[in-house]
Amino acid sequence: MHPVRSNRVYLALIHHPVYNKTGDVIASAVSNLDLHDISRAAKTYGVEAFYVVTPLSDQQELVRRIISHWTDGAGGKYNPDRKAALELVSIVASLDAVVDDIAGNGQDKPVTVITDARPHRRNISYGKLSEMLSSDRPFLLLFGTAWGLTQEFIEAADYVLAPIMGPTDYNHLSVRSATAIVLDRLFGTDKI
Amino acid sequence: MHPVRSNRVYLALIHHPVYNKTGDVIASAVSNLDLHDISRAAKTYGVEAFYVVTPLSDQQELVRRIISHWTDGAGGKYNPDRKAALELVSIVASLDAVVDDIAGNGQDKPVTVITDARPHRRNISYGKLSEMLSSDRPFLLLFGTAWGLTQEFIEAADYVLAPIMGPTDYNHLSVRSATAIVLDRLFGTDKI
Repeated sequence: MHPVRSNRVYLALIHHPVYNKTGDVIASAVSNLDLHDISRAAKTYGVEAFYVVTPLSDQQELVRRIISHWTDGAGGKYNPDRKAALELVSIVASLDAVVDDIAGNGQDKPVTVITDARPHRRNISYGKLSEMLSSDRPFLLLFGTAWGLTQEFIEAADYVLAPIMGPTDYNHLSVRSATAIVLDRLFGTDKI
Repeated sequence: MHPVRSNRVYLALIHHPVYNKTGDVIASAVSNLDLHDISRAAKTYGVEAFYVVTPLSDQQELVRRIISHWTDGAGGKYNPDRKAALELVSIVASLDAVVDDIAGNGQDKPVTVITDARPHRRNISYGKLSEMLSSDRPFLLLFGTAWGLTQEFIEAADYVLAPIMGPTDYNHLSVRSATAIVLDRLFGTDKI
């Protein structure tokens, strides 16, 4: 269904810079459910690492405590599958830190790809991105929280994926759902 | 990408009968996040109604209160998109009640389709289900909570969809992610 992937794919959930409901640029709060749902989807679809990006040190500490419960603490004994997923999570302060971490493994800098619910003049299709994924460079998929990534942040990315649409005009998916769908469109299989 | 749908598609999230971690049959607790994420995905992909199925009256009452906040209360004014999604939710006690409700609208009884993370000898592919969806009968997609629907419940369904898989052996998606992916595989588009 998809070409065999020779490169590495990474995922980052961005909590700053994003818009709030009224269009101000904020740092959003990290959601516990985002960590669980997105790490489980990342593990399912063979993502190398899931970066939780927030500049707020108290939020970084909260995420570390949650992850630690499931990877080192009682949670990991209770549910090893959850441990395997949450071990993918890294907490960092900025997109630059994500790029440095990936490139620090001796790889090229990753190609950055944004997914956003709003249409964008640079939108590319999932088919186009699937073709590009057969290159040797690592790819970093970027997802925003709250009311979405800022225009400046989107402009700075290498590529912008087309919004996920169904047969309606409604496209207010949660970032948890959007992440799962994007990974499935790129790497899902239908074996029976 | 997909055939134009002439029929109606419904979705139900089943809280009983499901397994717990040790294989006992239980009624699981309703999750607030399931209501939000799954109703938003249902709205995006043109689902007619999203049934939350639980025999527990206190859980039914809890769901009614949450829904009411967003459809009649302050939540709806704050976020009309959320209101539009949660208006799809109906709370019922059993699968029979779901089927009666759908057939009560003067339609045929729905074709029931299970999605489960475990392989099943009756698994059909997404392509096969897509073809069947061009029939005139309504379709009801059934999703389980906790550690999955009971074998008896699965056997009683008309069809069982193949498990969602990525390129790994890990398939522990949340039901929120699984619902979004199934709807996207059946009804998603890639317009740019």
